[in-house]
Amino acid sequence: MYLPRKILEEKLQELLGEDIGHGDITSSLTISENLVVEAEIVAKERCIVAGLEEATILCEDLNLTVTAHTDDGSQANAEARLLRIVGDPRTILSAERTLLNLLSRMSGIATITNHLVSKIRSAGYETRVAATRKVAPGLSYFDKKAVLLGGGDTHRICLDDLILIKDNHVKITGSIHEAVRRVRENASFSKKIEIEVRSLDEALKAAEANVDIIMLDNFSPGKVKEAVAILKNERVAERVLLEASGGITENNVVEYAASGVDIISLGRITQSPKAIDMSLEVVKVNKTRT
Amino acid sequence: MYLPRKILEEKLQELLGEDIGHGDITSSLTISENLVVEAEIVAKERCIVAGLEEATILCEDLNLTVTAHTDDGSQANAEARLLRIVGDPRTILSAERTLLNLLSRMSGIATITNHLVSKIRSAGYETRVAATRKVAPGLSYFDKKAVLLGGGDTHRICLDDLILIKDNHVKITGSIHEAVRRVRENASFSKKIEIEVRSLDEALKAAEANVDIIMLDNFSPGKVKEAVAILKNERVAERVLLEASGGITENNVVEYAASGVDIISLGRITQSPKAIDMSLEVVKVNKTRT
Amino acid sequence: MYLPRKILEEKLQELLGEDIGHGDITSSLTISENLVVEAEIVAKERCIVAGLEEATILCEDLNLTVTAHTDDGSQANAEARLLRIVGDPRTILSAERTLLNLLSRMSGIATITNHLVSKIRSAGYETRVAATRKVAPGLSYFDKKAVLLGGGDTHRICLDDLILIKDNHVKITGSIHEAVRRVRENASFSKKIEIEVRSLDEALKAAEANVDIIMLDNFSPGKVKEAVAILKNERVAERVLLEASGGITENNVVEYAASGVDIISLGRITQSPKAIDMSLEVVKVNKTRT
Amino acid sequence: MYLPRKILEEKLQELLGEDIGHGDITSSLTISENLVVEAEIVAKERCIVAGLEEATILCEDLNLTVTAHTDDGSQANAEARLLRIVGDPRTILSAERTLLNLLSRMSGIATITNHLVSKIRSAGYETRVAATRKVAPGLSYFDKKAVLLGGGDTHRICLDDLILIKDNHVKITGSIHEAVRRVRENASFSKKIEIEVRSLDEALKAAEANVDIIMLDNFSPGKVKEAVAILKNERVAERVLLEASGGITENNVVEYAASGVDIISLGRITQSPKAIDMSLEVVKVNKTRT
Amino acid sequence: MYLPRKILEEKLQELLGEDIGHGDITSSLTISENLVVEAEIVAKERCIVAGLEEATILCEDLNLTVTAHTDDGSQANAEARLLRIVGDPRTILSAERTLLNLLSRMSGIATITNHLVSKIRSAGYETRVAATRKVAPGLSYFDKKAVLLGGGDTHRICLDDLILIKDNHVKITGSIHEAVRRVRENASFSKKIEIEVRSLDEALKAAEANVDIIMLDNFSPGKVKEAVAILKNERVAERVLLEASGGITENNVVEYAASGVDIISLGRITQSPKAIDMSLEVVKVNKTRT
Amino acid sequence: MYLPRKILEEKLQELLGEDIGHGDITSSLTISENLVVEAEIVAKERCIVAGLEEATILCEDLNLTVTAHTDDGSQANAEARLLRIVGDPRTILSAERTLLNLLSRMSGIATITNHLVSKIRSAGYETRVAATRKVAPGLSYFDKKAVLLGGGDTHRICLDDLILIKDNHVKITGSIHEAVRRVRENASFSKKIEIEVRSLDEALKAAEANVDIIMLDNFSPGKVKEAVAILKNERVAERVLLEASGGITENNVVEYAASGVDIISLGRITQSPKAIDMSLEVVKVNKTRT
Repeated sequence: MYLPRKILEEKLQELLGEDIGHGDITSSLTISENLVVEAEIVAKERCIVAGLEEATILCEDLNLTVTAHTDDGSQANAEARLLRIVGDPRTILSAERTLLNLLSRMSGIATITNHLVSKIRSAGYETRVAATRKVAPGLSYFDKKAVLLGGGDTHRICLDDLILIKDNHVKITGSIHEAVRRVRENASFSKKIEIEVRSLDEALKAAEANVDIIMLDNFSPGKVKEAVAILKNERVAERVLLEASGGITENNVVEYAASGVDIISLGRITQSPKAIDMSLEVVKVNKTRT
Repeated sequence: MYLPRKILEEKLQELLGEDIGHGDITSSLTISENLVVEAEIVAKERCIVAGLEEATILCEDLNLTVTAHTDDGSQANAEARLLRIVGDPRTILSAERTLLNLLSRMSGIATITNHLVSKIRSAGYETRVAATRKVAPGLSYFDKKAVLLGGGDTHRICLDDLILIKDNHVKITGSIHEAVRRVRENASFSKKIEIEVRSLDEALKAAEANVDIIMLDNFSPGKVKEAVAILKNERVAERVLLEASGGITENNVVEYAASGVDIISLGRITQSPKAIDMSLEVVKVNKTRT
Repeated sequence: MYLPRKILEEKLQELLGEDIGHGDITSSLTISENLVVEAEIVAKERCIVAGLEEATILCEDLNLTVTAHTDDGSQANAEARLLRIVGDPRTILSAERTLLNLLSRMSGIATITNHLVSKIRSAGYETRVAATRKVAPGLSYFDKKAVLLGGGDTHRICLDDLILIKDNHVKITGSIHEAVRRVRENASFSKKIEIEVRSLDEALKAAEANVDIIMLDNFSPGKVKEAVAILKNERVAERVLLEASGGITENNVVEYAASGVDIISLGRITQSPKAIDMSLEVVKVNKTRT
Repeated sequence: MYLPRKILEEKLQELLGEDIGHGDITSSLTISENLVVEAEIVAKERCIVAGLEEATILCEDLNLTVTAHTDDGSQANAEARLLRIVGDPRTILSAERTLLNLLSRMSGIATITNHLVSKIRSAGYETRVAATRKVAPGLSYFDKKAVLLGGGDTHRICLDDLILIKDNHVKITGSIHEAVRRVRENASFSKKIEIEVRSLDEALKAAEANVDIIMLDNFSPGKVKEAVAILKNERVAERVLLEASGGITENNVVEYAASGVDIISLGRITQSPKAIDMSLEVVKVNKTRT
Repeated sequence: MYLPRKILEEKLQELLGEDIGHGDITSSLTISENLVVEAEIVAKERCIVAGLEEATILCEDLNLTVTAHTDDGSQANAEARLLRIVGDPRTILSAERTLLNLLSRMSGIATITNHLVSKIRSAGYETRVAATRKVAPGLSYFDKKAVLLGGGDTHRICLDDLILIKDNHVKITGSIHEAVRRVRENASFSKKIEIEVRSLDEALKAAEANVDIIMLDNFSPGKVKEAVAILKNERVAERVLLEASGGITENNVVEYAASGVDIISLGRITQSPKAIDMSLEVVKVNKTRT
Repeated sequence: MYLPRKILEEKLQELLGEDIGHGDITSSLTISENLVVEAEIVAKERCIVAGLEEATILCEDLNLTVTAHTDDGSQANAEARLLRIVGDPRTILSAERTLLNLLSRMSGIATITNHLVSKIRSAGYETRVAATRKVAPGLSYFDKKAVLLGGGDTHRICLDDLILIKDNHVKITGSIHEAVRRVRENASFSKKIEIEVRSLDEALKAAEANVDIIMLDNFSPGKVKEAVAILKNERVAERVLLEASGGITENNVVEYAASGVDIISLGRITQSPKAIDMSLEVVKVNKTRT
């Protein structure tokens, strides 16, 4: 997800602008012009940090000097200082909430993602943990980048990333066979084809239709294991990736991993992440600005 | 929060556009042109519904026919149908995720807000439950509207809504007295003045400075009660609103309400809401389009 | 009105872009590439200067070097040099008109505002002079900032700044009582409530309804005095702010101030300000660019 | 100035959006949902109306029904009803100020323009009255359209409309001769060439250089007359258009017209127009919406 | 490439706006208000039509009534009428050039693409003809949609569509092996991996690295044939898609197809297409508008 | 066509953003962070270079260091290095295609324009070669600037540049006479008037109507010669510019020039230009970034 900085800047300015409205009236009324302040952004709880790159760009764009004390994707303990910001206090305080909202959300997503990945790795499995398109509307870039930093897989960022034939497509088209046939006939060779199935029977049909990925939707861990076993016996299974989705939680994620599925995807890591508590603390106030 | 529809339309189209990218390649490949479909958006769990107005506008803007089965702000049971959508299936499916993401997030916020408000009302208190500016970046309009629908108070939507002198403003300015003095001298008469305090002593200074609202930050319920008692004895307390903020949870919210404070504000209702599980189900497929 | 510079930059670039169209064809045809020019922006008449911050940002954004000879809000005499601009003459001339239009309008607003404030202060009154929302469409930020620099009060910048119940709201709702009741029931605690009244009787009803501000609309100075006297006898009047609006001119503004009202608001300072005559003069042309 | 409606709609929505902010909180709090209102926009003083097309489009875009009682460019007396608007009162009131600001400003410009044109026509002259680029920043489209409706000439709307060699261009280039030479060599054949001159001598040089239009800058009416006489004796004068600019007021405009000049241009008609007083009055409130 | 209409509308309005500037001054000066006109867009040469959907949307958005005489992707003969447009002649003429520019370019791309596809099909091959990212900047959506309508494959529309390791990536990374290793380790499972190779040796390395697609860059038809033969003998070749690119023209395209390669990609179909000559002809002028 | 850099930057970022989508996934996956690369943009065929200014601005905006080896408008031989770019390879590669697409198209337009101009100049004529509004939609600024760099005339960039009465305007208005009369009555004095004619007879009528430019549409070289001869005998012809348009190709352009016409305009130089083949070559990779 390497976006040239200029493009990222614009997205971030929009977010800032929305929070500011006509201006930070409190800071402009209380704070005089000739001050330089040092502030620290501090994590109040243990987390995987995400959003430092975005916070840095947003600050630099506002003519603030920023130093990151750590890297995106690394772990921070409670009370860890993440970012030192130096500059005009009116600017710092007017951007404070946008910075914290971005860092808290992204770190929250990275932390839960990383937690699930770690559980799976600790249990000895290499299964991928993937996000879905269940993000906060308008924030897919940031939500998905946080998933990446937490060790997860972005899956589709938007509707043009992958051909994913879902239940409703099949219902409207008439059959798995017909849906895949139409896709095969007209899709660009550059795109993978995935299909969502509700039963082992559908999974077999999908495998015959020679898709790249089969999503086992709302299969219990036991049913996933069965599906893996049967499909692995088929010739196709050597190639087809199997994705389990639906009903997966922190508690059963290792069981799903143990089923032999290639990918586990969960909406909740981006749809209902717990934001990490963070705060911005002014640590020094200097009168003369250099 | 009455925005003329045209302005709302544009915000919604941006969210949709981000999710679609270059196009819904799956729907365009699998679904033929001459179809009309009926679909239902269904809540999979009990909730206070929010986002119906937005979903309706987004659909109508895409030339889909929408019928709401219920109203924003009302309660829906699990499996309740919320919205019936009729139109071109390619359009419906390309908008599905944006619709669900918006409804799920807004309903999640309305539900947790309403839950807290109900707990307080059941215990016989009239204390207001307010949100903070801890929202998903870029979504403050929708997040705050959901708070309203849940029975809460939006508090500041952006930095120009209210003069709120926080800890960092006081630290940079030097004292509560000086910060309020500067505000009094230059602020527009049209704005209320609120100040965040960390101790009873600061609260008394703020009351003397004659502000409109005092935010008791990270006070225990006991300390809030004490503050209310002391300030109510002062002449100022008849007018000043008292707001408790920081460390408030589902478990202690009634205790805070019992302290006699006017407003209770919580970041988590907009920062870490649990999204309501919803789905879009195609219920009928018709060949001929009228 | 402290907007981070980046946000202001964008607004200013839009204004510039509109004036330039496909390009400054005259400058590109007549002026060669290897030149550096010094220019001065000069006030042709006495004024309170406003817009220097905006002009500076616009110039710096175009890679021009700017030095302000004075400060926003200070008084300039006729022929006073306000801003020195050094850089590529094609850039300077292409931005000339946008710079002058902004400075002339903002200084015109600051000057008339300051004139009224000074008249009132000279007569020994502390009454505030406030603007209304009668601005040039799209320019409220600049118009209101100029009011501030002239010593006035911005009043509402947009419709979400304050609850202001006007004549039409009362007419549609049915009564002052009902309108205020609805507002009290649902408004955020963070907002002040103002109501526009047409008679002393309505003013008394508004005072009973316990609003924060009462706007006496189209009251003669005598009627305002009477209202102040009566309302001051009431207990409420100690708190309620009184605003006179409608029919106020340079000639009667002191009389209104003398009536004891807290705020005087006028549409004309932003709706029909006389622009200050200014010009940009090239004072030196150098061949080699460093 | 025929812009397809869609493009105009977007400009108007931007203006509206700026005035509304997060929403018209007063209307949404006081007014219930099931109402339809009839309102009239009324001119409080005699004027040439301008802005009806824009107001109509803005209203229709908000799903309001509009009927214009008169036409853009026609004269209205004091208390004349201009526009009848029917629809949701919350929408009407949220758009009221934007509508009035636009109509008041545009009608003010049309009225002063028309006043000058009428004075000249009454005196028996056909001289054109033209605007300059001294407009409210960002409003050139609306300001210039109002000039047209008042019977004036738009002159340049932006910098690409005409090659206009001004004092500063000549100063930087070195001479009128050289400036015109460069333009002749490279300019598109599709553009007219105008040059601003400060003296009769310069006017003669410009005439020799064979430009399309000569702007006599800050010439007294007498000096303009002299210039016209001399240049009319030259062969070029048959073709060259002569424009007088600078120092022209309501008082001397006929004297300038009498000098025989082709065009008279004034900054003040768009830079400092007196806005026409207008108001929106609710005339009927109906409970049931059809 | 199914974009909801609303999103397409915005792109089209931008294109129109750019061509119109401040307005179609000619039409507004010459054409009176009370007219309705019928016009036809006519192809002046044989072509595969593309852009009808876009032209229809653009017209409808301008309140014009449109009837398409044919379908996107179908063949039209010289003098064939493509689109009938009825409405305000000022609107029609102001949109004429944008409509024609879009239709001419898109039809030009569809026509050359279809020509190449037809040559290959006539020779009995099923090889795909794909575009590259060599489009007119800013027009990739329209250019690629035209390729589709001509029977071609869009290939990557933007950089996030497919992982395509090109010569420069390998040079910077050090080796094909290392580049693919890094991709395998971190790429989303949802994306295909393609690599560009310059020699048979590199192609073998790529095949070993187990990529999804190998692009044979600047291979002669003979070399492509050799590569196909060797790679088909490998086990991998059953799965890997082979794409020939570079130096392919109308003259040798069949020879390349005959080599057994799966995809042939050419930059020129979108980078240097010959626009189809089209015109808009007014066929009827009616005085009264209904 | 001198646009302040800031405005150009935004147009260029939009083009870049469209090509990048959610990010250059290949570069971010394959290339590590601590690298600095030197790259050269090389012309693969002889051409007139255009687009260097745009490419430079786009690169600098992305924090890349750029050195141009030549100037816009100059001739480059095959294999000539045009631009040296130094910086982060991920940034360089993500912008590569946008840079090349812009340079290739603009250079293609400059080259064909220059080719036609040179043919005419070699034959001893001074006839201007002008473009039309037949550009790639959305690219008129770049297309027309390339025409200028090739030695051509931009003609109208958009509809507000010139009053050009075309066939359809005449048909709708009723007659050449009436169309010109309406224009004369209401057009701004700042605009030239051109009219398109289909026959010698119409040309004479246009000359009588005293327009500035007459476009002889689809006249053979012989007919143009005849028209020039007849119109030159008239008194008007001394002033009126004559433009030949329609059916002009590389082969007959000199013949048209020989006819004595002032301007020759062709759609194809901007509508169907052959893009110049260019490539970006990485020439050095350094590990440590300064």
